[in-house]
Amino acid sequence: EESAQVLYDFSAEPGNNELTVKEGETVTITNQSIGGGWIEAQNSRGEVGLVPEDYIEVPSFPGAGTTAPTPSFGNVAPPDLSIFDAYAPPAAPAQNQASNGNDPWSVWNADPSGGTNNNWASNPEGTQTGKSAADPWGSISQGHPQAYQGPGAEDDEWDDEWDDMKSTGGYAESESGESGAMQRGGAHASSMKISLNKFPGFSKSGPELYLLCKQLPKGKEKLPIYLGEVGPVWSYPESQLDCVVADPKKGSKMYGLKSYIEYQITPNTTNRPVNHRYKHFDWLYERLLDKFGSAIPIPSLPDKQVTGRFEEEFIKMRMERLQGWMTRMCRHPVVSGSEVFQIFLTYKDEKDWKTGKRKAEKDETVGVMIFSTIEPEAPDLDPVEVEQKCEQFSKFTKAMDDGVKEILTVGQEHWKRCTGPLPKEYQRIGKAFQNLSSVFTSSGYQGESTLTDAMTAAGKTYEEIAQMVAEQPKKDLHFLMETNNEYKGLLGCFPDTIGVHKAAIDKVKEADKLVATSKITPQDKGTMAKRVSTMSYTLQAEMNHFHSNRIYDYNRVMQLYLEEQVKFYETIAEKLRQAHSQFTTM
Amino acid sequence: EESAQVLYDFSAEPGNNELTVKEGETVTITNQSIGGGWIEAQNSRGEVGLVPEDYIEVPSFPGAGTTAPTPSFGNVAPPDLSIFDAYAPPAAPAQNQASNGNDPWSVWNADPSGGTNNNWASNPEGTQTGKSAADPWGSISQGHPQAYQGPGAEDDEWDDEWDDMKSTGGYAESESGESGAMQRGGAHASSMKISLNKFPGFSKSGPELYLLCKQLPKGKEKLPIYLGEVGPVWSYPESQLDCVVADPKKGSKMYGLKSYIEYQITPNTTNRPVNHRYKHFDWLYERLLDKFGSAIPIPSLPDKQVTGRFEEEFIKMRMERLQGWMTRMCRHPVVSGSEVFQIFLTYKDEKDWKTGKRKAEKDETVGVMIFSTIEPEAPDLDPVEVEQKCEQFSKFTKAMDDGVKEILTVGQEHWKRCTGPLPKEYQRIGKAFQNLSSVFTSSGYQGESTLTDAMTAAGKTYEEIAQMVAEQPKKDLHFLMETNNEYKGLLGCFPDTIGVHKAAIDKVKEADKLVATSKITPQDKGTMAKRVSTMSYTLQAEMNHFHSNRIYDYNRVMQLYLEEQVKFYETIAEKLRQAHSQFTTM
Repeated sequence: EESAQVLYDFSAEPGNNELTVKEGETVTITNQSIGGGWIEAQNSRGEVGLVPEDYIEVPSFPGAGTTAPTPSFGNVAPPDLSIFDAYAPPAAPAQNQASNGNDPWSVWNADPSGGTNNNWASNPEGTQTGKSAADPWGSISQGHPQAYQGPGAEDDEWDDEWDDMKSTGGYAESESGESGAMQRGGAHASSMKISLNKFPGFSKSGPELYLLCKQLPKGKEKLPIYLGEVGPVWSYPESQLDCVVADPKKGSKMYGLKSYIEYQITPNTTNRPVNHRYKHFDWLYERLLDKFGSAIPIPSLPDKQVTGRFEEEFIKMRMERLQGWMTRMCRHPVVSGSEVFQIFLTYKDEKDWKTGKRKAEKDETVGVMIFSTIEPEAPDLDPVEVEQKCEQFSKFTKAMDDGVKEILTVGQEHWKRCTGPLPKEYQRIGKAFQNLSSVFTSSGYQGESTLTDAMTAAGKTYEEIAQMVAEQPKKDLHFLMETNNEYKGLLGCFPDTIGVHKAAIDKVKEADKLVATSKITPQDKGTMAKRVSTMSYTLQAEMNHFHSNRIYDYNRVMQLYLEEQVKFYETIAEKLRQAHSQFTTM
Repeated sequence: EESAQVLYDFSAEPGNNELTVKEGETVTITNQSIGGGWIEAQNSRGEVGLVPEDYIEVPSFPGAGTTAPTPSFGNVAPPDLSIFDAYAPPAAPAQNQASNGNDPWSVWNADPSGGTNNNWASNPEGTQTGKSAADPWGSISQGHPQAYQGPGAEDDEWDDEWDDMKSTGGYAESESGESGAMQRGGAHASSMKISLNKFPGFSKSGPELYLLCKQLPKGKEKLPIYLGEVGPVWSYPESQLDCVVADPKKGSKMYGLKSYIEYQITPNTTNRPVNHRYKHFDWLYERLLDKFGSAIPIPSLPDKQVTGRFEEEFIKMRMERLQGWMTRMCRHPVVSGSEVFQIFLTYKDEKDWKTGKRKAEKDETVGVMIFSTIEPEAPDLDPVEVEQKCEQFSKFTKAMDDGVKEILTVGQEHWKRCTGPLPKEYQRIGKAFQNLSSVFTSSGYQGESTLTDAMTAAGKTYEEIAQMVAEQPKKDLHFLMETNNEYKGLLGCFPDTIGVHKAAIDKVKEADKLVATSKITPQDKGTMAKRVSTMSYTLQAEMNHFHSNRIYDYNRVMQLYLEEQVKFYETIAEKLRQAHSQFTTM
């Protein structure tokens, strides 16, 4: 047992054996070998509970501060990024140019086979940045950053699924959270969750690496882009991948101290279910973001976007949203065709999964280098057209983001009214009719029942309507909100994707000056122009994919919404017609 | 020109040439011969305008303080009311016994043929009491009491119809106005508007006059009560009288300084329209209250119960309520059969009307003496049964009053929501859909219109729904509110009616003691019991009339309400079905 200083405030999740601590507080470590990123501590009032390890300054904690990856370069020569004054951090060239091999891509991924860390959790700051930026809800929800996973932590540890339950109400937060707007304001580089931020000092995710790469890596990956009716389009598979997320099962770890939920995912290709926990989805998300994030908006997982105050409701909601997320990924021809996505859906056994994981984590075609795999089957685009397209998409996604948020705000308000004051009012109307009816019953007047029976029935009808009104949002508004919520998340990724694109356009604009000052050769300039054209084809293909999905999704959700609304009003009308028929005036 | 002291606060009606004055303020009389109960005054700021005469202490005002009627007794000997210690005011016997002729009923009505005053306006205090008690809204509305009508005032002067426009919202006030409850609390005598309060010192409207009257007046009026299926019932005419109030026309008086509205009333008996101004309705109300108020609840005129901020809306509303009031009076077999009511509906010319008016004002069968015309064709009732019935009716009317007020409160709230936040919300939903649709239109993506046309239409549909929601209360809730409002007014009269009845029961209970102390003879006691039985038959007939009308009215209004509600929800469902059909997911 030893004393330790608390570094950050931590709020315990009730019923989770946790201990609330305050920054600066001194606690006594009662058990340091809990594992899973937690230690057991006792506060001055004698209360004992779990606290995340990285919230406490434990002098002798093994593995802390030893997680910085050793950069190792692969077989491609790194470009001299210092030529872009605007982007080169003043005091960081040493790292940029540090060569520890001949593969520059290996720096993006610390070798996971070493088992020293799970790369997305090794840097709490990076994780936090990712949360508050990629996920507009992240900055609002009370969840603490994922606890550090020490060197001894097993691959399939507990995850903090339950901590997410702290967040309340998925839509309300959407308005107060301005991280999305901030992101759009130009800070996209730092918010990008691609692996660049893991390499100390290399904080920019600019497209220079791809634009000026002397020799593009020759992998077997090829992502063709065709010219379709609507313009550049991805190559779509003949049959669309789909999967069903279902059957959540509770499991527990650490002698029941921590529990988790395992979901069953069944793809339509194999029809064979695989099991995954939320943390595996998160792993997949990180891989997809690393690999495709520069070209394809990869929406955040529904981690913090949970509603529901009860465990079952929470699980149902998370599953529904994981299903939505998976469906969207399945629908994307590039994502769904990727090796990492296939492994996630079709691994045969634990060993197969672990091998697949390791392989995916070693993937070097990540970040802006994804553009190197893209092969547009079309003539190079004029830089002016590239810029125009980019501007158009930028404006459109911004405008749609506003429109979607407006619907969410209005929908949220309507939801509140439909579940709050409105049914209460109908209930009161119903009660008032019934009360008057029972007064009438007391009149002692003959033939009174011809009125009172009908009035009581009318009163009950309004009480039924009250209940219908209160339950209706779950039947229609829910899907309208979920779809718009999903689009809000998706649209929140565009600023990053478009940001990379704009940065590339800016670089090409600088090309003449760079040639003039002999910083690059005229040939380099030609390469840059060609590559930015490839990037534009990618963006256009992605926008066309987005538009096509959007038109389908909004047609679908509006149909669903209106269908349920029609049913709702028809049912009310029918109920009232019944009530009406009971009154008589002879 | 002379200075005068302002006695009460008076708020000028904008656009009506009036002057706002404060109690205690000194003004200069600039024109005392305006007439119509008004004088022109100038305040210290030099502003000139009309002020009601009785709001200002004008020393030499002719006719002020000279309106006390000279009591004159008719051909029936007045009972010695001093025997009821509880009721006899200690220092008032002189007036009670003052005999100025042999007709005691003439004291209730100052001789109108003398033209000194219109009797309901001659006593501002009495008028005010009547307003705040009989009309629960009266105490809330800002209207000032009707101005004193001086000796020179013509019969058909302007009335202060426009002043009523100050009151806003008919239903909201119903809750804050507790005058109805106070009335029920036992202060019924002072609030009764029957002419008793015009005879100074005789402030109680107890039933003694009738119970102990030595010799009942023998008029030609006979009001039989039969034993019907439901118990004692009035004698109903074969065809029911009805009338239509329509065609309001604006006229003006005093060189355009004051304007009034004349309504056309057409009874179904003659089918010949007669014209009446609001003040004539008020005159009729006063006559009916004087004559039948002790036995039959005569609801207040809709004077202060006006809604509508615009002149047209106000006139429409007042007309609608006058129609409701007239319909209710027409439906009452006793009221509709009375001479005064018939004169009002069928007078042939101005002279006929004036003659009829004078005759009605001379009517001596008023107050509790109405019971002397009632002839129950049934055996006398046991006093115990009389009391039980009375208790039952008292409880019922009180309970119904509560029930009706609950509906008014709830309806008022619902009205507010339906015309306020709810349509705004639907409008915002509609706008949000349309906004998103117009963003989509800007995508430049092919085939976008398959979505955007439908979304725009859906958005417009919700805007239409918003308008429907806002307009719906006028179509359904309005009648539900009006009916309940009418019943609230009617129920507010019952405490007085029942109060007279209870007082009579109490008197009969005292009979034995009075006989023992030789204050009355055993024969008197028998007469009292018989007369209280007659009163009970009257109350029962009236309650049965009330119940029968109530059952019809509530069946009718509920039918109407639900019918419109069904239409409303069906129309919305149909509109949404249309909107739904425009979306496609192929």
